[in-house]
Amino acid sequence: MSKLDDVYSKLTIKTGAKLALVVLDGLGDIATAAQGNLTPLEAAKTPNLDALVRSGCAQGRLTPVAPGITPGSGPGHLGLFGYDPLEFEVGRGVIETLGLGIERKNGDVAARANFCTLDDKGIVTDRRAGRIATEVCERLCGLLSAKIKKLGTTQVIIVPGKEHRFVVVFRGAGLEGPLTDTDPNREGLPIAAAQPVDAKNAKQKKVAKLIADFYKAALPLLAKEKPANGFLMRGIAHQPDIPTFEQRYQLKAAAIAVYPMYKGLSQLVGMTKIEGPQTIREQFERYVAEYENYDYFFIHYKYTDKAGEDGNFAAKVKAIEDFDAALPVLLARKPDVLVITGDHSTPCALKGHSWHPQPVLLHSASCGNDKLERFTETGANLGSLGVMEAKYLIRHMQANAKMFDKFGA
Amino acid sequence: MSKLDDVYSKLTIKTGAKLALVVLDGLGDIATAAQGNLTPLEAAKTPNLDALVRSGCAQGRLTPVAPGITPGSGPGHLGLFGYDPLEFEVGRGVIETLGLGIERKNGDVAARANFCTLDDKGIVTDRRAGRIATEVCERLCGLLSAKIKKLGTTQVIIVPGKEHRFVVVFRGAGLEGPLTDTDPNREGLPIAAAQPVDAKNAKQKKVAKLIADFYKAALPLLAKEKPANGFLMRGIAHQPDIPTFEQRYQLKAAAIAVYPMYKGLSQLVGMTKIEGPQTIREQFERYVAEYENYDYFFIHYKYTDKAGEDGNFAAKVKAIEDFDAALPVLLARKPDVLVITGDHSTPCALKGHSWHPQPVLLHSASCGNDKLERFTETGANLGSLGVMEAKYLIRHMQANAKMFDKFGA
Repeated sequence: MSKLDDVYSKLTIKTGAKLALVVLDGLGDIATAAQGNLTPLEAAKTPNLDALVRSGCAQGRLTPVAPGITPGSGPGHLGLFGYDPLEFEVGRGVIETLGLGIERKNGDVAARANFCTLDDKGIVTDRRAGRIATEVCERLCGLLSAKIKKLGTTQVIIVPGKEHRFVVVFRGAGLEGPLTDTDPNREGLPIAAAQPVDAKNAKQKKVAKLIADFYKAALPLLAKEKPANGFLMRGIAHQPDIPTFEQRYQLKAAAIAVYPMYKGLSQLVGMTKIEGPQTIREQFERYVAEYENYDYFFIHYKYTDKAGEDGNFAAKVKAIEDFDAALPVLLARKPDVLVITGDHSTPCALKGHSWHPQPVLLHSASCGNDKLERFTETGANLGSLGVMEAKYLIRHMQANAKMFDKFGA
Repeated sequence: MSKLDDVYSKLTIKTGAKLALVVLDGLGDIATAAQGNLTPLEAAKTPNLDALVRSGCAQGRLTPVAPGITPGSGPGHLGLFGYDPLEFEVGRGVIETLGLGIERKNGDVAARANFCTLDDKGIVTDRRAGRIATEVCERLCGLLSAKIKKLGTTQVIIVPGKEHRFVVVFRGAGLEGPLTDTDPNREGLPIAAAQPVDAKNAKQKKVAKLIADFYKAALPLLAKEKPANGFLMRGIAHQPDIPTFEQRYQLKAAAIAVYPMYKGLSQLVGMTKIEGPQTIREQFERYVAEYENYDYFFIHYKYTDKAGEDGNFAAKVKAIEDFDAALPVLLARKPDVLVITGDHSTPCALKGHSWHPQPVLLHSASCGNDKLERFTETGANLGSLGVMEAKYLIRHMQANAKMFDKFGA
């Protein structure tokens, strides 16, 4: 924990205030001539959001990680949750397991894996086994899972992904990463042995042994398969402990998300996962229903990002308008502090995540009024929050919730 | 190298994109009632720059070093080149040698020197030898240079500056600074011996011996001069290694500058010096001619700063208009990422460098559009880049050049 985090912790007081963070995934965008020089937020009709802005909001822009850096969903959300993404790096294997809906436990070691093709001498001839169909991958993972549930006292969890990809989680006491890949990174070589990155680390050595045992048990089960008669493992790492949201902020937090990745990210920091709602309207209804049970609500909406990734401007506008149409459900039981933002930008013109700071809107009884008419990127440039690192957002939310004592006399 | 720099390095990919940084030295200014409440950028007619802005640019302001700090040219440019000026401190002697057009080599130890007047007991009676004319200084330096070319195996380079000032460079193996000054800092005392700052450092001891030998050889040559029969040395230091631009950013860089100081600063970070052009139009022509040969171009324009230093508002406006008139030459072969900014502000009203963040403009296919009409200080306040430390500028340039992989999954 940084010195500043420590200062915040010491100033924190419990107030019973209700805080809500609504993440429109990939919300930020850029204006291009091809789209009439408007961003989707600018082009969308958002009467409810507009009314909220005019009632008094603070706006600004959030740098997800650091200037120029394009974040994945992991760092994007950790930042919004107040965890410096440069301090709390989440392993690639862990993110994959989250994306596949596997609950994570402290101490798990996870690895990404690919099915591959081996010749009769054990040489890798195709690192992706001809990109086998997802159904084949599911069948093969089922085959392995049925036979390999434990290695010694360590639990082994095998979960299929898309095409040739799957994830292996080792769960038990005394495990630690990172280890080197078993993937030789090019064809014409045999499968490599996973080696402890720190040769003196007994926990890493234990994992090296586990992986060797896993190969010993698994390869015979695949021997007659074509083309996927082998597999390669990468990114073998454990997830370092992350202090929970409640420890860090004294806020009991709930996540109302639809997609496994975002449920998983919220669980990384110890939020309670609320299952059921599928639409943003249902998510807001559930927020109202759970209002008394939690202090902090993380509500995740995926469709802005999806449209951005597809480069579909009209769909992104529509996603924003759908959100706006549902917004009154949430506003009917207004939290003390409401934030609406993205986890990063996903500009339609770039068809992917980007580094552009996402716009952020904060509404509370004490946020002041930036006197803007709407919530847009160019408007947010003028707001009182300025351009700040996303990790500070939670601090503004806490301040607006009157959760901080005065610093110094 | 900071942890964040390390993160950037790991994300960096080579793309073949072309990046150009145009520095209008001392560009930033302040509006005063005396000048109709306009800055030179606001008063200047800049049709080409205006058209560029309206075609889609991101604007903001750059803090050269840290809030309130007025930088010299060294820190000002190092920041723009992405080297934190607080981490990479360039010795004053080194800056002086750069300003005098002396090429720097790793391991050089450089010192600033003043001619002084000594009485017959060797006591300093005038630390500046009555501010002798520059021509006298040049003659005396010639006298010393002719007789003292080497001390042992160490090369000695003596270069005259203005009035009583000159620079001495020791070039050879096994040298290191810093050493204490030989300048007693007030009259009535003898010349001090230069002492190693770290008494156990053999390389510093070697330099202490060299400086004693240098005095032994040089003082007899000046004995009959009046009033400059002695000299004092200050800021005796070596230049620590600086990672080159290419190592740090995977960009092959060229500098198109007219003045020795800026050629020297670009060489500090390993840019290739392109000689020849004298006017900004010639510099842009040369950029076009060299387009295929480099990835990054640093183009330096001095006259905005000169006018600011002179407090000449009309001349600063004219310098900006001259730059604008030449701009189409550069735009005829637009780089993938173009930045126009200053290395600091030099407000006419202050007749010198200042701490005011300079305005910055970034243009690329993916920079978005801040919907501003012109490039000015007050306009830049509204831009999407916000107010940021100059050292992050290169990271935005790299991001816009698509030179960064995604951070995390």
